[in-house]
Amino acid sequence: MATRTVYLKDVPFDEAWERFRAALKRANRWDLIEGESVALGEALGRVTAEPVWAKISSPHYHAAAMDGYALRASDTNGANDRAPVQLMDERIEPVDTGDALPDWADAVVPIEVVEVVEDLDKSPGILLRAAVHPWSNVRPMGEDMVATEMILPAGHQLRPVDLGAAAGSGHESLVVRKKPRVAVIPTGSELVPPGTLPRPGEIIEYNSLVLAAQLEDWGAAPSRLPIVRDDPDAIQSAVDEAARRFDLILLNAGSSAGSEDHSAEVVSSLGELLVHGVAIRPGHPVILGIVGDGVPIVGVPGYPVSAALTGEIFVQPLIRRWLGLTESGERQIEAVLTRKVHSSLGDDEYLRVSVGKVGERTVAAPLSRGAGVITSLVRADGIVRIPAGIQGHAAGTPVLVHLYRTPEEIERTILAIGSHDLTLDLIAQHLALRGTRLSSASVGSLGGLVALGRREAHIAGSHLLDPETGEYNLPYIRKHLATTPVMVVGLVRRWQGLIVSPGNPKGIQELADLARDDVVYVNRQRGAGTRVLFDFQISQLGLDPDAIQGYGREEFTHLAVAAAIAAGRADCGMGIQAAAVALGLDFVPLVSERYDLVIPKEHYESELLAPLRETLVSEAFASEVSELAGYDLERPGEVLAELG
Amino acid sequence: MATRTVYLKDVPFDEAWERFRAALKRANRWDLIEGESVALGEALGRVTAEPVWAKISSPHYHAAAMDGYALRASDTNGANDRAPVQLMDERIEPVDTGDALPDWADAVVPIEVVEVVEDLDKSPGILLRAAVHPWSNVRPMGEDMVATEMILPAGHQLRPVDLGAAAGSGHESLVVRKKPRVAVIPTGSELVPPGTLPRPGEIIEYNSLVLAAQLEDWGAAPSRLPIVRDDPDAIQSAVDEAARRFDLILLNAGSSAGSEDHSAEVVSSLGELLVHGVAIRPGHPVILGIVGDGVPIVGVPGYPVSAALTGEIFVQPLIRRWLGLTESGERQIEAVLTRKVHSSLGDDEYLRVSVGKVGERTVAAPLSRGAGVITSLVRADGIVRIPAGIQGHAAGTPVLVHLYRTPEEIERTILAIGSHDLTLDLIAQHLALRGTRLSSASVGSLGGLVALGRREAHIAGSHLLDPETGEYNLPYIRKHLATTPVMVVGLVRRWQGLIVSPGNPKGIQELADLARDDVVYVNRQRGAGTRVLFDFQISQLGLDPDAIQGYGREEFTHLAVAAAIAAGRADCGMGIQAAAVALGLDFVPLVSERYDLVIPKEHYESELLAPLRETLVSEAFASEVSELAGYDLERPGEVLAELG
Repeated sequence: MATRTVYLKDVPFDEAWERFRAALKRANRWDLIEGESVALGEALGRVTAEPVWAKISSPHYHAAAMDGYALRASDTNGANDRAPVQLMDERIEPVDTGDALPDWADAVVPIEVVEVVEDLDKSPGILLRAAVHPWSNVRPMGEDMVATEMILPAGHQLRPVDLGAAAGSGHESLVVRKKPRVAVIPTGSELVPPGTLPRPGEIIEYNSLVLAAQLEDWGAAPSRLPIVRDDPDAIQSAVDEAARRFDLILLNAGSSAGSEDHSAEVVSSLGELLVHGVAIRPGHPVILGIVGDGVPIVGVPGYPVSAALTGEIFVQPLIRRWLGLTESGERQIEAVLTRKVHSSLGDDEYLRVSVGKVGERTVAAPLSRGAGVITSLVRADGIVRIPAGIQGHAAGTPVLVHLYRTPEEIERTILAIGSHDLTLDLIAQHLALRGTRLSSASVGSLGGLVALGRREAHIAGSHLLDPETGEYNLPYIRKHLATTPVMVVGLVRRWQGLIVSPGNPKGIQELADLARDDVVYVNRQRGAGTRVLFDFQISQLGLDPDAIQGYGREEFTHLAVAAAIAAGRADCGMGIQAAAVALGLDFVPLVSERYDLVIPKEHYESELLAPLRETLVSEAFASEVSELAGYDLERPGEVLAELG
Repeated sequence: MATRTVYLKDVPFDEAWERFRAALKRANRWDLIEGESVALGEALGRVTAEPVWAKISSPHYHAAAMDGYALRASDTNGANDRAPVQLMDERIEPVDTGDALPDWADAVVPIEVVEVVEDLDKSPGILLRAAVHPWSNVRPMGEDMVATEMILPAGHQLRPVDLGAAAGSGHESLVVRKKPRVAVIPTGSELVPPGTLPRPGEIIEYNSLVLAAQLEDWGAAPSRLPIVRDDPDAIQSAVDEAARRFDLILLNAGSSAGSEDHSAEVVSSLGELLVHGVAIRPGHPVILGIVGDGVPIVGVPGYPVSAALTGEIFVQPLIRRWLGLTESGERQIEAVLTRKVHSSLGDDEYLRVSVGKVGERTVAAPLSRGAGVITSLVRADGIVRIPAGIQGHAAGTPVLVHLYRTPEEIERTILAIGSHDLTLDLIAQHLALRGTRLSSASVGSLGGLVALGRREAHIAGSHLLDPETGEYNLPYIRKHLATTPVMVVGLVRRWQGLIVSPGNPKGIQELADLARDDVVYVNRQRGAGTRVLFDFQISQLGLDPDAIQGYGREEFTHLAVAAAIAAGRADCGMGIQAAAVALGLDFVPLVSERYDLVIPKEHYESELLAPLRETLVSEAFASEVSELAGYDLERPGEVLAELG
């Protein structure tokens, strides 16, 4: 066993950035990156390295602004209805829009306002019933752009119309900032490429994919280099080689203090290790350094969320700096936190949140905080930064969210909470086609009702059986949502039962089997509809929870229960058939239950929910549900009850 | 001379779109475009054609969540400060983050909280002063994604983190919508490619550049085909050929009713002409049709603003439809119109505006409405749509602006109005580096003061000489801005004089020469500081305006005056030396005048203007001004007076 050393020491973000910046300045790598000439057809999205001045005027001659006839305005003096003026031969010249005005002409009369006259003896002429003002329907030279005028400033990211203006003012290419060349080097003996079926301990290497895509978005030219094994010499030679060819190196993982973390030692040996550890979460084992001939290197932590955030926090500002882009024009919105959040006093914390507008309030619901949970970034609508020095925020605290989406997308987001069901994924798909997003959080049926009462979501999926009345949902709504008028809307019935290993090796047939010594159960969390159902069923049987092994281990979704069984951590768990089918497990059906949507009245009737109301009664949705194992439609979209 | 026919008949936008849509449906071209499999590394920005389901769970095994030691939690029971537990040999295993947990272990203790002990007789062990909970610091299988779970919906535009989630759940490629192939065909015998020095009547062809860049932005695959001359057979054969290889054809220009407009007849002969003329401005000569095997074709008008707007209005929705993207998530903002706008009763009008926030009000200032003025789109911050049936809006009307920029960029925009000066371009450049935009409108000095009084801008450039006192600006401010407290801030002195043709062929030496028969003058508009100065100077000389040829012809900027002289439309005009130098003209200096910035006090002290205050006193700015011909610095950034 190797001896372990701890040398990671977190410094505050500002200090880390300042050390990096100072070192880049010393190395002459803090300036704007040099320019290169690029043809207009290739320049979309590039950043101008110098102002663009008009080389020629546009129009560069007096141009007809309409299809019609060029003429001398003075020839039309006095024309009116009673005394029309007829012009023929050399006194008119037909012109199309954009044609140069003849030297002798000073106006254009549009084709729509003249009468064409045919005269047997002469060529055709035109009849005018009103005088024409000088310079009318003429685009004078320079109307759009005058030679030497500044058309675009430096540091401007080129849009389609900018390319047109540059071409119109005489350019065929522009000097734009070179794209910074960035090497992305994945390291780790445990890494395998995407598409590989990994063995235990192996990890699919996708951080380089995410980092390269971020770099592309930000205007850099990334190169994903081959995976390097955990060998200091191999890493050192890869970095040394990259330092000769790139403007920036991202060295992924190995930045922590484990026995196979060689990044810090490689950076030290090839240059200067400036920072090893920054007081941010997630992402604190960041390395900042300079190697070779002053090339900056960022040691990016291995956890995917940490890696992506390190990109946003340390790499994006550097790329923008080099390109001469200033503020990122980041969108911010104020929202109210739905849940209490603890935060480390010593670190800046980057909290991923989903965001929606519930009534007049914009709410931010914290997502999973695990640095390994990349789906938390996929689902995130934005980030809340909780600075060091604050221990967290209470529920209801107004916070500033740095949005990943436009405020318009947030306005078109339906927040679903409560018990998760696979039909919600189908609904999400239909809503997307109708321009609306469904963002769901799984907190169990009861948690969903409570959240509706706190006005944190628009709809809640619920399958709560009242043990006393045998009624679904209504008794719970009366108790927990007494003051909120709601509609209960039908959706599906679904089979609940025991999910068991393929072939049901332990021969589990009924709940009584859970008391057996050789059977390990995996439970759902308190408040989940499935948990209520399970507790009701075992109490009917007189089965003591203490007699069930694993009763204390709680999972939060049907699929998590199924996954625990697939992984051999338990022999069975209560859940829906669809979850068993999904993971190739077997299923012992026990009871068919109702799964309804509970929707506060104010939202049910809102425009936001119109696409949901349409989806629920659509034939396409009905046919998709009928293909799911263990499901029956239960008056979908119908209002089953109105309460409050 | 050819006989001209008028066959263009405008239909309302909704009807035009409905005809197009119905024809596309009949031709089976209204459905989503087919999918194709694309490697993750190439999939950024593409649109998913089907939902992405997890193939494998992530993690796909129980994984150490920290660097440290794997152990059995039960081995640590009872450990505390007084009775630490020592674990050695087979009861611990060092693990790095991400390593698979050994079968026998159920927890990880982080390296930071253990003491490593060396025992001479044994291998090293660890000392624990607290018990460890089962499953602590372990990422259970499926924590991030559970196999079969939906990771991404269909119709989703892929972001960097999405690629990571797809890879982590077992994918190496995704099925995304094919990029619609779009042919962009420029037509017109007058067209020359960018970079050519055009002769009179020739036009630089850049619409295809703008349309192709728009298409690229929207997710299509554009091909710019060679310019086709104005010959019906040549155009017909280009369209016929394109209809075999592309999903959509944009046929640029020739869509109007001039003698060389062949687009409509080509579309008719190759298929069905659905619409010729839509009641929108700019852009009404749009053609919509179907050619060949049901391929849609859009006849795009030739004016650059019309062409770009036709792209936005007709092409973008079709591309989004094919890709399965719904709402464009367009940003809108409410703003107050600064000026009265007339609009055609029969047409939907698309008005380009610049937008800024002045105090608490967001204001929208209409830009040039010429369909040929592409700089109006370059400068536009957004578009106001004035629907048919409305004759226009009064100044002060609240309107909805479809923004081209983020609201944050709008908030960081300084609106400058009044007299234009070249130093404002220099200032704009410095502000850009400080993350602030300068948007200027030229309305002359007096117009600028009036606009400040109406709270339409943050700063106004002014060089108004009071003929009675010889004082600059202050008397005008007292009169026109009596109720607005303002600061007058120094900027420059500049030479005003007569701009004349190179070599001064008419030998113009003083203002008295303007009364000569052989001299044509070009004037500035009333309210312009230069006009005030000119009128003052000629009245001093007792020169009658009627004696000056061209006194009635007004231009709005110094450069426009210079351009008129360069074009031979006039022999001289009053203006600044820099404008003469810019167009290679000669200059007869007459008087040095002060050009100040007038800034309402509330804005002068605002955070928004801080970068301006810094710029004015910077050495870099001073040195740039000193390089301009005809300029002297005049206490830049200094408050010369405080009024009101």
